[in-house]
Amino acid sequence: CKNPAWVQANDFSFSGLHNPGNTGNPFGSAVTPVTVAQIPGLNTLGISMVRIDYAPWGVVSPHYHPRATEILTVIEGSLEVGFITSNPDNRLISKILQKGDVYVFPIGLVHFQRNIGHMNAVAISGLSSQNPGVSTIANVVFGSKPDISTDILAKAFQVDKNIVQQIQWRF
Amino acid sequence: CKNPAWVQANDFSFSGLHNPGNTGNPFGSAVTPVTVAQIPGLNTLGISMVRIDYAPWGVVSPHYHPRATEILTVIEGSLEVGFITSNPDNRLISKILQKGDVYVFPIGLVHFQRNIGHMNAVAISGLSSQNPGVSTIANVVFGSKPDISTDILAKAFQVDKNIVQQIQWRF
Amino acid sequence: CKNPAWVQANDFSFSGLHNPGNTGNPFGSAVTPVTVAQIPGLNTLGISMVRIDYAPWGVVSPHYHPRATEILTVIEGSLEVGFITSNPDNRLISKILQKGDVYVFPIGLVHFQRNIGHMNAVAISGLSSQNPGVSTIANVVFGSKPDISTDILAKAFQVDKNIVQQIQWRF
Amino acid sequence: CKNPAWVQANDFSFSGLHNPGNTGNPFGSAVTPVTVAQIPGLNTLGISMVRIDYAPWGVVSPHYHPRATEILTVIEGSLEVGFITSNPDNRLISKILQKGDVYVFPIGLVHFQRNIGHMNAVAISGLSSQNPGVSTIANVVFGSKPDISTDILAKAFQVDKNIVQQIQWRF
Amino acid sequence: CKNPAWVQANDFSFSGLHNPGNTGNPFGSAVTPVTVAQIPGLNTLGISMVRIDYAPWGVVSPHYHPRATEILTVIEGSLEVGFITSNPDNRLISKILQKGDVYVFPIGLVHFQRNIGHMNAVAISGLSSQNPGVSTIANVVFGSKPDISTDILAKAFQVDKNIVQQIQWRF
Amino acid sequence: CKNPAWVQANDFSFSGLHNPGNTGNPFGSAVTPVTVAQIPGLNTLGISMVRIDYAPWGVVSPHYHPRATEILTVIEGSLEVGFITSNPDNRLISKILQKGDVYVFPIGLVHFQRNIGHMNAVAISGLSSQNPGVSTIANVVFGSKPDISTDILAKAFQVDKNIVQQIQWRF
Repeated sequence: CKNPAWVQANDFSFSGLHNPGNTGNPFGSAVTPVTVAQIPGLNTLGISMVRIDYAPWGVVSPHYHPRATEILTVIEGSLEVGFITSNPDNRLISKILQKGDVYVFPIGLVHFQRNIGHMNAVAISGLSSQNPGVSTIANVVFGSKPDISTDILAKAFQVDKNIVQQIQWRF
Repeated sequence: CKNPAWVQANDFSFSGLHNPGNTGNPFGSAVTPVTVAQIPGLNTLGISMVRIDYAPWGVVSPHYHPRATEILTVIEGSLEVGFITSNPDNRLISKILQKGDVYVFPIGLVHFQRNIGHMNAVAISGLSSQNPGVSTIANVVFGSKPDISTDILAKAFQVDKNIVQQIQWRF
Repeated sequence: CKNPAWVQANDFSFSGLHNPGNTGNPFGSAVTPVTVAQIPGLNTLGISMVRIDYAPWGVVSPHYHPRATEILTVIEGSLEVGFITSNPDNRLISKILQKGDVYVFPIGLVHFQRNIGHMNAVAISGLSSQNPGVSTIANVVFGSKPDISTDILAKAFQVDKNIVQQIQWRF
Repeated sequence: CKNPAWVQANDFSFSGLHNPGNTGNPFGSAVTPVTVAQIPGLNTLGISMVRIDYAPWGVVSPHYHPRATEILTVIEGSLEVGFITSNPDNRLISKILQKGDVYVFPIGLVHFQRNIGHMNAVAISGLSSQNPGVSTIANVVFGSKPDISTDILAKAFQVDKNIVQQIQWRF
Repeated sequence: CKNPAWVQANDFSFSGLHNPGNTGNPFGSAVTPVTVAQIPGLNTLGISMVRIDYAPWGVVSPHYHPRATEILTVIEGSLEVGFITSNPDNRLISKILQKGDVYVFPIGLVHFQRNIGHMNAVAISGLSSQNPGVSTIANVVFGSKPDISTDILAKAFQVDKNIVQQIQWRF
Repeated sequence: CKNPAWVQANDFSFSGLHNPGNTGNPFGSAVTPVTVAQIPGLNTLGISMVRIDYAPWGVVSPHYHPRATEILTVIEGSLEVGFITSNPDNRLISKILQKGDVYVFPIGLVHFQRNIGHMNAVAISGLSSQNPGVSTIANVVFGSKPDISTDILAKAFQVDKNIVQQIQWRF
């Protein structure tokens, strides 16, 4: 039942990491993913790749990948990167990376990057799943559809409800 | 090299879920875990259990387990529960649970519970890892040691730095 | 091709653990499962839950789960519980549990419970598979459809054929 | 830290499947295992092998492997083989095998074999674990150390206690 | 939705390992596989079996299984067997096997066998996947469809292009 | 027993992908790996990265990774890349890649790259294991220590023994 004609190079390739992503947004960053959605042949193979572009001082907001560890290398520029361990320590493990440096964000841990230079920066990452998933904290917690009850977030973050609502309006 | 005397009931048991946890804290909740830290025999077996106590209106703050799905049943009281799907949908999937109801929080997704009644509430959960881990969003993002740079969080949550600092002071 | 409307709370919830199961049977016990058959959203998530009710002196007969470890906690009453290790030791690891005690039955090992009190007892268990499976020894060995040859069972259990048949008639 | 000298042919080989096992026992069968206990190099590799010898009418008693599927081929003689599915169907799936026939016993299901000929029989099996484990029903249920309470087994198998004790004395 | 009638002995059995394979080919060997293609019930069960026949001095050419470790036992005759470890050591781990000897070829490593006697030889192997796959080096490297560029192979094997072409013509 | 001081940025980072590898060898290529050997924190995390440099017309010789799929992107230059499927098809799936193109080499399949331009080329790959392993065909088959018997290789590749020896002398 297998049709040999099905296996073809197009199922295992993708063109498109040569162009910078559009960093004209409030965060100053852009992520171009190459996952099973872009390369069907990646299905079950347990890996994917992303290109990340950063405007000067651009930030990739705190987020985590439920199904993947990320290994990142800087192609251009300088980045501040970090991840935070789970309870009870919640330690921030961070570093300044230069071109050619490599950093690891372990599976399921919140992490972020910031361009600390006056020029654009570029990074390439490998991720240990063909479908790594992304949960961006600000969007998940303050931008869910529908919103999480303001009461719950006010108690969770120990702030007034109007501050919670102020953030919810942004997401 | 195996010593049969090593296998004993004490390695597979734990006493302590009959007492309510202490909910006298700003969140009004307490979690009593039974993981491989409490029962050594759970090692490699892929399961653990927790008892959760809630004071009236008590909240278990948004958090996720990097390594486990959670299945929760209400033993006493009524709970509002929910989880949020990952990007790009960020949908809140929530429900009001009564005594005897069961709810599932899929692995790696942010979720929360709130006691919506005037009495104490109690839940028992099973988790699909002997070492599920917990990342509580407020503690990870605003309470890491050392702090994430205020600049990064102000851009990530699109708020003034003084609001970021106000939350950081609490955690 | 994903329809966001597909994800809904009903796929992740179940109502029905508040009612005792019917223990009016020769074993004096009842198991109410909450697996992927009851909660479709559990698929691939590696966990399930059961409520177990015991009449006074009721027994959950020796059985094993081919695909799950079980972690049990006593909600009401007192239980004698045990599991038996595989060849060559075949050690019985047993304990008397009171309300709030927790016990672990490792994946694939034969185990049982008995209510040792004069009142009904209740337990809640988590299992490390959404589809744990159950092989009850008496039903599998003496109640298969069709029956295992009486000759084989007489030799396996080293008893007369009429004793084998006597047990087969019951199952 | 790896010493290349450590890898040697002796860690990956075993001599001893040419001799018949001793079938002079009440069951008329003998199992010669080749697992990680005999070949250290099998560690983590997920496979093992056994030779099984059967005297005329010899039986390999109902048992299961908690961690392995078994694929068996008949080298000499004729065998009746079968396995029983889990609850609720408990179906016996059986067949008569001749020399060169192959049969599969799925992981975790109770199975057995019987030599149906007047000559010795021999089988070779592969198992999908380097440490498959064996739980023989008669030994686990009626021969555990210490014994399972006679009361529990009498209720589980729906027979008089003296019949339970009669079987327990044999194991 | 499960139809109990679906589970039947024919889905778990195969007849055909009693006949020698046809060794009248340039290699003097024949492999008769029993995988999920022959036994549908093997699906997901992680094991398969092969019979291998060798004419005098017959060779099973260097190959590897991408998804399985192989455990082989000699049923008739004598074999020279070996596998080669990965970079940087590339150590050949080899042995002469007699009837009843067992050898392991670890997953993903290149291995081979040769009949070193003047009689036919027979082996039975278990493999740790229901679909182990085979990549035979000569066929993959010199017999692909279409051919790998002769330039590339000449550089890779450090020989003249006409030697590469001479081998390519054979496969 | 966990010492929080153990987790530090140095365990999750590596500096060294900014320098080209030395391509002054017969193949005209160099691979700089970043695996668990370079970054201890990668242990168990299932990912690694390599930088590959190619002199003009340089070749990365046919090889496979026993434990990893590779996803490659071209940073500079143009590459001819390909992999070969396993038996019985042995199809070559190949493509010319330009800067910014991405290609996948599925786990366990033989693959190669060649710089098809007059300038140096550079690629970055992610691999789906912290310890992917490499088996280079020429080294494994013709350069093992000790050598595979020339007789076996002559029959396997269907060539004269002196051609086999000629290749063996090179590796």
